[in-house]
Amino acid sequence: MSYINENFLDLQESYLFSTIAKKVEEFTKKHPEKKIIKLGIGDVTRPIVPTVVEAMKKAADEMGKKETFRGYGPEQGYDFLREKIVEFDYKKRGIDIQKDEIFVSDGAKCDTGNIGEIFSTNNTVAITDPVYPVYLDTNIMAGRKNIIYIPATSENKFVPDLPKEKVDMIYLCFPNNPTGTVLTKDQLKVWVDYARNNKSVILFDSAYEAFITEENVPHSIYEIEGAKEVAIEFRSFSKTAGFTGVRCAYTVVPKELKGYTKDGKEVELNKLWNRRQCTKFNGVPYLTQKAAEAMYTEKGMEEIKENIQYYLENARIIREGLQEAGFTVYGGVNAPYIWLKVPKGHTSWSFFDELLENAGVVGTPGVGFGEHGEGYFRLTAFGSRENTIEAIQRIILDSRK
Amino acid sequence: MSYINENFLDLQESYLFSTIAKKVEEFTKKHPEKKIIKLGIGDVTRPIVPTVVEAMKKAADEMGKKETFRGYGPEQGYDFLREKIVEFDYKKRGIDIQKDEIFVSDGAKCDTGNIGEIFSTNNTVAITDPVYPVYLDTNIMAGRKNIIYIPATSENKFVPDLPKEKVDMIYLCFPNNPTGTVLTKDQLKVWVDYARNNKSVILFDSAYEAFITEENVPHSIYEIEGAKEVAIEFRSFSKTAGFTGVRCAYTVVPKELKGYTKDGKEVELNKLWNRRQCTKFNGVPYLTQKAAEAMYTEKGMEEIKENIQYYLENARIIREGLQEAGFTVYGGVNAPYIWLKVPKGHTSWSFFDELLENAGVVGTPGVGFGEHGEGYFRLTAFGSRENTIEAIQRIILDSRK
Repeated sequence: MSYINENFLDLQESYLFSTIAKKVEEFTKKHPEKKIIKLGIGDVTRPIVPTVVEAMKKAADEMGKKETFRGYGPEQGYDFLREKIVEFDYKKRGIDIQKDEIFVSDGAKCDTGNIGEIFSTNNTVAITDPVYPVYLDTNIMAGRKNIIYIPATSENKFVPDLPKEKVDMIYLCFPNNPTGTVLTKDQLKVWVDYARNNKSVILFDSAYEAFITEENVPHSIYEIEGAKEVAIEFRSFSKTAGFTGVRCAYTVVPKELKGYTKDGKEVELNKLWNRRQCTKFNGVPYLTQKAAEAMYTEKGMEEIKENIQYYLENARIIREGLQEAGFTVYGGVNAPYIWLKVPKGHTSWSFFDELLENAGVVGTPGVGFGEHGEGYFRLTAFGSRENTIEAIQRIILDSRK
Repeated sequence: MSYINENFLDLQESYLFSTIAKKVEEFTKKHPEKKIIKLGIGDVTRPIVPTVVEAMKKAADEMGKKETFRGYGPEQGYDFLREKIVEFDYKKRGIDIQKDEIFVSDGAKCDTGNIGEIFSTNNTVAITDPVYPVYLDTNIMAGRKNIIYIPATSENKFVPDLPKEKVDMIYLCFPNNPTGTVLTKDQLKVWVDYARNNKSVILFDSAYEAFITEENVPHSIYEIEGAKEVAIEFRSFSKTAGFTGVRCAYTVVPKELKGYTKDGKEVELNKLWNRRQCTKFNGVPYLTQKAAEAMYTEKGMEEIKENIQYYLENARIIREGLQEAGFTVYGGVNAPYIWLKVPKGHTSWSFFDELLENAGVVGTPGVGFGEHGEGYFRLTAFGSRENTIEAIQRIILDSRK
């Protein structure tokens, strides 16, 4: 009898985005004449930059010729891309990461989800709240029962406190989704030190690194001393280069990083992840990796920077507009997310309804990211400039009623 | 303390391909003047066909324009591709599969590896031997201890016997890798009936379906009555369209198919797999799906058929050449793999050494695919015509010594 993994039944059905979609649909039916502006989903809207498109087309041509055709590539990614990553994302920041510590993949969602496979299901897991739901759901699916939620709210300025209990695995995401906040080097060092003292592992999601504008905000957890002994870092080209539909990311597993058997024997996590990837993954398309490589050319970097600036300018427009209108606003300086306190008397969902009904603007209710997101609301900077400006004008107008 | 998944330590290090590589390297050093022909790895060599290359370049251009840019796609795949699959791979064969029963992915390796996540780790698993190592390794990684090996050898004409024990999960791959053999409809029906009687699930890997030339060999397990109640089917564009470096495949999970809780409650596996994919996967690149879609155009199908014919002709050359030279040969009629009995007095590895030393031809020792592969040897039809002909001439010459 084909018994199922019953842990799946412990998952909460995620009604968040389907509920949003349903509410929007109903509104549109009632008011077909009204233009709705969506600043809800974290998907980019700017097209792939010319240098990257050219690289894709060139790679397609190569695939069409016998002499340059490529079949199976290395599961860990082609050297040409891993070398660029080493050089530009680490060496340039004074971080020593080796090529074989980098695993190119088709997305940080997959990697942050799959990484759990190399760890014991008995581990205690710390997750900040509010949070990107993938960390939580994949741990529930794996059957981990000891999950500790660490609140990140305006009370602690979105700097989560260390857990009081000893935890084995810690998920951190900075710049943070959904709050858009960051940790300084000193604040991140507290976590690295905790992990070193407790032999915990930090799963550091750095997908929004490209949006960091301020000094003293670490772009990589490996800027913190000793982090290579305790941290796995997840990076993505999704938001950096608009690759949400191209699918390329990478994960860094330093060779210094050890996990432990029940008997306390040390095991290199790099080897375990390598084995996992070689057994269950067949590498990222050659064409996609050539596209990612093109990002690291001078021209590619310039073009991409322009897109990031565009989104950051959207973020500024949202942030400052709402602040002027009297909202309490977080994020949006080093991140494409703006996290705002809903006006007094509102819940996340009642504010959602109000914005939709009165301003025709769609955002994401904070409570959708966890209990401690209640009372907050997320807007994203990934829309077009025109829509972003119009959305904020409408929200301000509504708030003055 | 970050405890690891200790099941990983139960994995046998796969030395197969690294041992082969090492032996080839040593030989090349000793005999730099000799040309080595590799018929070992199951990777294609023919380039991507023109219609598909054009579709890729068109999609790259679309991604570069604001109006046609695509961000996140559906985790299950775009409708345009799922509709083609429904139409051409199923409806045309009289099989009723719905669009939402199809999950487009980046590879059958990933899918056959990840599918285990939705099943209980206490399930008993039946695996044919010799076998594609991913089925076994991913079950070991997941901690499944009850694994039953079902021999497929010349004694049973590579038609595995039903297990004597009750098993919960069954991996079948036909046309088979590595043996190149197939089951007739009646032979496959025996397995479907077994699964229906025992409420087991069949994980049917049909990656080599495009190479079937004979009548009465099922292209899909769903050609067998009742299979939709018991089988998940894995398909791949890797060998069909030379997509080993493009990465596209799909998995069919019919809605009739149920798994069971410990209490015997039925659960739709389609829903579980959908939840798994939505949580841990972000879909296949738009460009890749447009490439796969182009396969289903009239021109695309013609071009691809030509490639398949090319490889099948290679298979014929290998098969007939070796038969004439007195070898006992299996497969190569409905599959790109030729499975031969090593000459008397040889083991898989001693025959490997002999072929390398005396003929400069590299194949894969059968024992690398499991205990019951001992005494056999795999050659693939994926080389160039010239190399294939030369390799067989050399093997024949050597066998006459």
